Amino acid sequence: MNFEFHNPTHIIFGAGTLSKLGKVASAYGKKALLVTGGGSVKRSGVFDRAVSSLKGAGVSVIECSGVEPNPRIISVKRGAQIARADGCDVVIALGGGSTMDASKVIAAAALYDGDPWDMIGHGQENWAVPTRALPIITVPTLAATGSEMNSGAVISNDDAKVKSFVMADCLFSKVALVDPELTLTVPKDQTAYGVCDIITHVTEGYFNGIDGTPIQDRFAEGVILTAMDWGPKAVADGNDLEARTQVQWASVVALNGWVQVGTDYGFPVHMIEHALSAHHDITHGAGLAVVNPAWMRFAAKARPERFAQFARRIFGLSAANKDDLSLAMEGIDRFEEFLRSIGCPTRLSELGICDGLFARYAEDAVLVVHDENGNLPGRPPMSKADIVGVLRSAL
Amino acid sequence: MNFEFHNPTHIIFGAGTLSKLGKVASAYGKKALLVTGGGSVKRSGVFDRAVSSLKGAGVSVIECSGVEPNPRIISVKRGAQIARADGCDVVIALGGGSTMDASKVIAAAALYDGDPWDMIGHGQENWAVPTRALPIITVPTLAATGSEMNSGAVISNDDAKVKSFVMADCLFSKVALVDPELTLTVPKDQTAYGVCDIITHVTEGYFNGIDGTPIQDRFAEGVILTAMDWGPKAVADGNDLEARTQVQWASVVALNGWVQVGTDYGFPVHMIEHALSAHHDITHGAGLAVVNPAWMRFAAKARPERFAQFARRIFGLSAANKDDLSLAMEGIDRFEEFLRSIGCPTRLSELGICDGLFARYAEDAVLVVHDENGNLPGRPPMSKADIVGVLRSAL
Repeated sequence: MNFEFHNPTHIIFGAGTLSKLGKVASAYGKKALLVTGGGSVKRSGVFDRAVSSLKGAGVSVIECSGVEPNPRIISVKRGAQIARADGCDVVIALGGGSTMDASKVIAAAALYDGDPWDMIGHGQENWAVPTRALPIITVPTLAATGSEMNSGAVISNDDAKVKSFVMADCLFSKVALVDPELTLTVPKDQTAYGVCDIITHVTEGYFNGIDGTPIQDRFAEGVILTAMDWGPKAVADGNDLEARTQVQWASVVALNGWVQVGTDYGFPVHMIEHALSAHHDITHGAGLAVVNPAWMRFAAKARPERFAQFARRIFGLSAANKDDLSLAMEGIDRFEEFLRSIGCPTRLSELGICDGLFARYAEDAVLVVHDENGNLPGRPPMSKADIVGVLRSAL
Repeated sequence: MNFEFHNPTHIIFGAGTLSKLGKVASAYGKKALLVTGGGSVKRSGVFDRAVSSLKGAGVSVIECSGVEPNPRIISVKRGAQIARADGCDVVIALGGGSTMDASKVIAAAALYDGDPWDMIGHGQENWAVPTRALPIITVPTLAATGSEMNSGAVISNDDAKVKSFVMADCLFSKVALVDPELTLTVPKDQTAYGVCDIITHVTEGYFNGIDGTPIQDRFAEGVILTAMDWGPKAVADGNDLEARTQVQWASVVALNGWVQVGTDYGFPVHMIEHALSAHHDITHGAGLAVVNPAWMRFAAKARPERFAQFARRIFGLSAANKDDLSLAMEGIDRFEEFLRSIGCPTRLSELGICDGLFARYAEDAVLVVHDENGNLPGRPPMSKADIVGVLRSAL
């Protein structure tokens, strides 16, 4: 266990905290670029409440709306252009993971003279990882990505059919203003995909991290158990504020680094899903629901004792008369059943994805992150053939 | 769950990281006040290695040694005077919790013109909570207080027989450089007291926090389980680096805020122990080992279901044919047995403390923190008579 960790984001959490946005933002400037997605925040009135809070605190608002799901680099360029043209001091993301990720890169692109796509890893020789950005404030309206309190962003390039990421200290938001009330209107399917996203964030570290991280194991299990306990309640009744609150907090914690710190993990499931959604524009959490169980059945063979621990600690399964691998597979079955029970797809066919491009997805998955043998990092590392095998098993 | 959280400390963790001290410190200045305790760091050679790393990076060293256990405000004044006189840019704490706590307040006192005791809460009308401090770097040599990565410090006033605390954002260290190798020479008793301190940090939030914090419950349980798993190994073999590493990391996590975030908890066990050690100069962790089980038996009556959860999840006890309170008491017995098994005292008599000053300890405990009825905050709030009753039960 040798690592460094730093998460400077100040989080303000709780129902009703949206009203603090103006006061919070005014500490960072007089003119804010307010970035939003497809319009749900306008329909729900959240946008107007945000603008009203900002104006009340003397912060003027420049709007950048229409960031799409799986946000495109062209949206980033557009946002950065507006921020520059209007001299914005601060970038506020009001939306889901797509809006937050785009906003973070907009904040960096506003201070970068080159092509913003340089900042996103896509196999280029010189990855221009950003070193400075306008101050960022995140206001999530969906419990899923955890982008509100971390330094990462995932951006797609429609022309290249590449979906990839960047992580940089300057992309930590200054303040994450997390108000679970804003998620009350999220529909059932997106709520369920969010729950899957949350769980997958911690299973990546849990299954792909180094040995000997017992506290991190317990932290991960705590997030999974809580998401599995409260997620179905949030799906069943979107107005259950207690459920929305627990799921929202799980979302923050699942990817703000506290759970994974020191585990030095790979994230093969995410890399494979990114390849799928780059081509098919599916919801990230839905893609993960398909890929994760299929990947787990593949990886359990290499590390049955770890998956048996998952079966025991998450599902209370007992090892009596079973070897680790049998117990592991039983746990994965139960996990897949859970995903189905809340309405997630678990087969590629449900996403309308056939086997025609499997080799291409495998190529894309290893494009950004690969070890010295060209394999996708994880436990075990995956060859392209392994990736195709996992996808085939999920057809 | 409505809260704010912010922990800006950059942590560098792992065996061998002491060698990075010079490079780390050089980012904050050219002249460091190096604060140490009773001499163990000199005997072990750690002091020389630290100085050598600092000088190698062009950082000159001004020494402030001799900070005592239960650090006194006079040591803080002395340190601050040296820091001012020599124009130090940065304060480096190389030692246990006492050294770190003293260093933090030294860093603030160096920039404060009044009496540093104003900054420590002791019932005064105007608590001068510090708002600025020299940059602080913490290098713990003991796994116990978690002071390396939080904003708190506990300081004693020998004249007034008061031991109290301060918490302030400016007291977060810039960098916590946590090298488990530095704890290899800690003797068995101090190792055990440290393990008790770690566990008590999380039981305070676990038992005194608000309802409805399932992730925080799991996080707390994870720290307790890990400390109980690896603590005895570190006590049994001080040279077991793996055990030292796990215990050291548990120590950081137990009080850097991640476990307790949002639980809005009181810390009655700490307040009672502080009153004891203000008068008797006992080791904090040893005092906690006596007070915590006694307090738990008192508090379990008010909240048996929570203590039953502790019994189930920590000790795997089953509720078959038992009510919650019986199960709770069984769990507390097991916890006390654990403390004894690693060599902690669990009776006041073992600390040489009799009942002569019980009323005074109770007065002192509520001096700094009390609710509108004058009770010590916690679940349940404690009257002075309650405190005396708990102490009496621990004789």
